[in-house]
Amino acid sequence: MPDLDTARTEPVPATDHTGLRVMGLDESLLRLGEAPVGRLAFPLDGEIAVLPVNHVLDGVDVCFRTSGGSKVQAAVDGDAVSFQVDDWDAESRTGWSVLVHGTASVVTDEDEVARLVGTARRPWVPLDADARWVRVSTRQVTGRAILPR
Amino acid sequence: MPDLDTARTEPVPATDHTGLRVMGLDESLLRLGEAPVGRLAFPLDGEIAVLPVNHVLDGVDVCFRTSGGSKVQAAVDGDAVSFQVDDWDAESRTGWSVLVHGTASVVTDEDEVARLVGTARRPWVPLDADARWVRVSTRQVTGRAILPR
Repeated sequence: MPDLDTARTEPVPATDHTGLRVMGLDESLLRLGEAPVGRLAFPLDGEIAVLPVNHVLDGVDVCFRTSGGSKVQAAVDGDAVSFQVDDWDAESRTGWSVLVHGTASVVTDEDEVARLVGTARRPWVPLDADARWVRVSTRQVTGRAILPR
Repeated sequence: MPDLDTARTEPVPATDHTGLRVMGLDESLLRLGEAPVGRLAFPLDGEIAVLPVNHVLDGVDVCFRTSGGSKVQAAVDGDAVSFQVDDWDAESRTGWSVLVHGTASVVTDEDEVARLVGTARRPWVPLDADARWVRVSTRQVTGRAILPR
């Protein structure tokens, strides 16, 4: 799988070994930015936590606000995390998914926070006053889609 | 968070520290079984892979077929994995999610495979002849829902 530096110039194969259509970087980022909900997957106490958040796409990075302690802690730890979005249609039995691998960090710069607040959709879950912005600095983006039959 | 042995007898708190409604075990399992698509999260090459699959609920375990090499390998390795389902409504800004922590293994018993085939919905992605059944033996199930406002 190509990383971000080569993804825009490498040819994209039509399908992968399971017959899914391989989405290019631009299509994957478009889907990532349009999805109202995504899922942060991160190591927590020897398990993998998977928690939905309302995110925004900032360049190629995924940013979200959270007042959840575990999500902020994973960010502070600098753990390798993943962020996933997908969408499905049960009737046509088709769908797509996009997966980001990256590193999480808490956004501390006030100007950056102000800029992110300006771009953000209103979160669905009310946030505490101590809610923090978390940035997933993207290393790799991959996307797959079920081909219609 | 209660494990499976205590989840049915422990009182379920109304909301968690982020204001989400805590779903009980029975409601969580119902949602898990009804969802047509779930996401397997597992360690892969130092990252966390998150891959959608069509699953079935077998008791409290999650089972699915896959011809994807990485998913089968994670199962063979006996890694701690997670399985997540959710559903959302962008208009009302509500939704719920259920998270399973468990251990994955390839199902090798032929009678068990035959029984699972009988219960399974037809997978959306055509499977290779070498597709295997994977069982996520559930250790913990938790669910959260956004309260309507």
